[in-house]
Amino acid sequence: MTDRLYIYDTTLRDGQQTQGVQFSTPEKIRIAEALDALGVDYIEGGWPGANPTDSAFFDARPDTNARFTAFGMTKRAGRSAENDDVLAAVMNAGTPAVCLVGKTHDFHVTTALGIALEDNLDNIRASVAHVVAQGREALFDAEHFFDGWKANRAYALECLKAALDADARWIVLCDTNGGTLPAEVGHITADAIAAGIPGDRLGIHCHNDTENAVACSLAAIDAGARQIQGTLNGLGERCGNANLTTLIPTLLLKEPYASRYDTGITHDALQGLTRISRQLDDILNRVPLRQAPYVGASAFAHKAGLHASAILKDPSTYEHVDPALVGNARIVPMSNQAGQSNLRRRLAEAGITVARDDPALARILDIVKEREAQGYTYDSAQASFELLARGELGQLPEFFEVKRYKVTVERRKNKYNRMVSLSEAVVVVKVDGEKKLSVSESLDEAGSDRGPVNALSRALAKDLGRYSDLIADMRLVDFKVRITQGGTDAVTRVIIDSEDGAGRRWSTVGVSPNIVDASFDALTDAIVWKLLRETTS
Amino acid sequence: MTDRLYIYDTTLRDGQQTQGVQFSTPEKIRIAEALDALGVDYIEGGWPGANPTDSAFFDARPDTNARFTAFGMTKRAGRSAENDDVLAAVMNAGTPAVCLVGKTHDFHVTTALGIALEDNLDNIRASVAHVVAQGREALFDAEHFFDGWKANRAYALECLKAALDADARWIVLCDTNGGTLPAEVGHITADAIAAGIPGDRLGIHCHNDTENAVACSLAAIDAGARQIQGTLNGLGERCGNANLTTLIPTLLLKEPYASRYDTGITHDALQGLTRISRQLDDILNRVPLRQAPYVGASAFAHKAGLHASAILKDPSTYEHVDPALVGNARIVPMSNQAGQSNLRRRLAEAGITVARDDPALARILDIVKEREAQGYTYDSAQASFELLARGELGQLPEFFEVKRYKVTVERRKNKYNRMVSLSEAVVVVKVDGEKKLSVSESLDEAGSDRGPVNALSRALAKDLGRYSDLIADMRLVDFKVRITQGGTDAVTRVIIDSEDGAGRRWSTVGVSPNIVDASFDALTDAIVWKLLRETTS
Repeated sequence: MTDRLYIYDTTLRDGQQTQGVQFSTPEKIRIAEALDALGVDYIEGGWPGANPTDSAFFDARPDTNARFTAFGMTKRAGRSAENDDVLAAVMNAGTPAVCLVGKTHDFHVTTALGIALEDNLDNIRASVAHVVAQGREALFDAEHFFDGWKANRAYALECLKAALDADARWIVLCDTNGGTLPAEVGHITADAIAAGIPGDRLGIHCHNDTENAVACSLAAIDAGARQIQGTLNGLGERCGNANLTTLIPTLLLKEPYASRYDTGITHDALQGLTRISRQLDDILNRVPLRQAPYVGASAFAHKAGLHASAILKDPSTYEHVDPALVGNARIVPMSNQAGQSNLRRRLAEAGITVARDDPALARILDIVKEREAQGYTYDSAQASFELLARGELGQLPEFFEVKRYKVTVERRKNKYNRMVSLSEAVVVVKVDGEKKLSVSESLDEAGSDRGPVNALSRALAKDLGRYSDLIADMRLVDFKVRITQGGTDAVTRVIIDSEDGAGRRWSTVGVSPNIVDASFDALTDAIVWKLLRETTS
Repeated sequence: MTDRLYIYDTTLRDGQQTQGVQFSTPEKIRIAEALDALGVDYIEGGWPGANPTDSAFFDARPDTNARFTAFGMTKRAGRSAENDDVLAAVMNAGTPAVCLVGKTHDFHVTTALGIALEDNLDNIRASVAHVVAQGREALFDAEHFFDGWKANRAYALECLKAALDADARWIVLCDTNGGTLPAEVGHITADAIAAGIPGDRLGIHCHNDTENAVACSLAAIDAGARQIQGTLNGLGERCGNANLTTLIPTLLLKEPYASRYDTGITHDALQGLTRISRQLDDILNRVPLRQAPYVGASAFAHKAGLHASAILKDPSTYEHVDPALVGNARIVPMSNQAGQSNLRRRLAEAGITVARDDPALARILDIVKEREAQGYTYDSAQASFELLARGELGQLPEFFEVKRYKVTVERRKNKYNRMVSLSEAVVVVKVDGEKKLSVSESLDEAGSDRGPVNALSRALAKDLGRYSDLIADMRLVDFKVRITQGGTDAVTRVIIDSEDGAGRRWSTVGVSPNIVDASFDALTDAIVWKLLRETTS
């Protein structure tokens, strides 16, 4: 007999409270689709009305199995729920579920809201009832519940009961300031249940200010709560929310949770977890945290010599779970043998078969190591890795040679006295023994200048002789730049994602102290990879 | 009555197991000095003999109040402790304390060591006795203790007793694979105490593979253990060790720990914690983790509008501790979700006082919202925000006007037939009514080209008339680029971090479809902000 445990994701709402994070509507859609593929129960999409992007997202939200939830706050005092315009904007998003945050800490009611304690209870009751009356599922986020309980237990519990009496499906205990420790979360949650709030209507919402958000969430479950709120990669205000990327595998793979609860997430979907975590970092242009539990690049890296040799005998000697279960992989950096088998696996993925004893393997490993020390990263640029390996194996034709290029960016006032820019690139290539000069600007349809990399890309693609047609359907879909350490100097790393009409998508990398050079190298790799696919398939 | 709780730091040993981390001897000395200033009880310096840097460090180790500890392993079977050369190298480091790791999990004894269970008990007993006989303090690291207890409780406890009988001062329960959850750590630690191992001789050593290392350490203390092992910033093998940078402030500032225990660390020293954490990142050339509890740059950042307005009334509304206690500071960043009170606070921090009813407030908020929709982000570019606000308030002098610029990047073969690049920029500015043309290349001392942004930056700074001297001490320290959505089109967002001789550090932002334009705007803001500081202070 397993109990159902519900996973509530708030990456798109509380996760957006992360300093420096601001999702666009298309980004929110991509994340929602990834969350739905993972199989979470609820997706909190934002606060409609408080934020133009959030309203646009609710209008454009994709079809999901997960239940879309709009976030808002309980109605203000002195007006009815029906006449509260902030609440109306939340309802107007038309989501099947609505989560309203309200006060439960007497100090906040009197200090932050400046209203009577009884009025706050009315606000909770009336707002939840309003959501239910509209046929929506109502959730109540009990803000500062743990601090409130410590200050005035009776009042904090009364707030929960007000929401319960108004038929909230879920009453979510929020440790808003993130300062409550796991043992306290456990016994206060147990007290709420003892006071008459059923555990199967209780949720938990923790923050990581003492690095205990995961442990506090588990403590609440142990006490009887049945919904966990959190975010992917632990995004969120201040130190972040409870990290679902850690909690989900713990609930599925570790005892007592694995046999006691059903989260609705399948083991198949769990294997996509590492990919989803990296995809989010990609959207945020963040360096993935190597040490992240389960999904980090170092999570199953065994550096200590003693550990590495034991791992070869039996991985369970130094691994608490099998990395494949979360779509991650073991790294044994010290072992040359592991390096080569790892390399052969990657080459096989690119369709290149190499014999186990081919001396090129050691050579490729050396080049990859040297390049990565210079700032290249082949993990995120498989197409460039493939070109490097094929070059070393003698399996890469020279389609064209770039003899030189020149790109100019000029900004000046136009005849209307407005500052305008113009980028222009000249590229000289040799194709089939013939020298070709191409020149291109980078103005788009709207007449605005797309910059030097765009100009170079157009000039390069313009005349590649018989190859021009083959690359006509490719386009640059993303361009990521990062300053990184190359040896002792800072260098620029550019990663370009390209796409073609056949639905292929590939990534290439360039590194240089000069951002235009780095971009040009990544661009050239992108074209060569495409030509390789077009001429050998 | 407070109990003494001992803090054992293993940054220099287990912390060095982090993928990519390799401390030099001078770096180890700097870290040891910082740990000693903080006031930890033990500094584990490394494994003498296993690693040349570790041996050199023990020879050169500084004088500290903290007890230096050498790490090693129990003697191997088939020889005496006196005749084990690995153990001898550890003893030869001459430290007052020696910590030896040994097996306690029957599966590891038979699989990894391949010896009889009784022989392993002998190894523990004889090795600890040898350390004690030499007049050193002996610690025993009980490897895989929690997994061992679950597999064969009697044997795991026998291993602890062997160390206790041989007079180990501390017996440290290690969750080597990091897979044990807090509740288990609590009840297994309690069981060890019930079985006769005194709590005041028990230590705890946790790893973060389920993001519970801090919670597991606290659970062991709650059960009666009195020594905590961990690392600064949670460095360590795989997902890292228990993070002392989080545990120390929790033990000093949070109940029940603050009144129950004395860690020997003073509140004065605690105020150096943020600095020590950043210093370690500096040594490792890592970007400090913004979301780190207590010490992260975002740990006390309040982005939500509702939070920001309450913080103005009373910081305890959304902070579990005062940031000053750990040497950190509160941030109320600008963002899409910020209200007017947040805005006034940000302006006050920049030294700008605005009346509550000034209509410029609403105007500034509108501009910020509009710009953020275009792709700007002012919470990571406070200096650009200040300039925007001052401009709107009529408090921004026009130091200079950029009339036009032109930058060229050329890549071609040099006379040695190697591809080389050269960037050159021309900038035309008007200063004090006078037009000035400057030109600059971007070759560094080594003769390599640093690219178009560098060339523009040099040309712009070259001749600003009477302002040139004022900006002579500023330099660009970081340059971040991402592609983001500006309205319907992809645009480039550039954030530049600058620094000057007075130790100021500021960030500016530029957005454009053209990366060079975006960079130039961020660069111009950086210079204008610096001029503002130099001319108004």
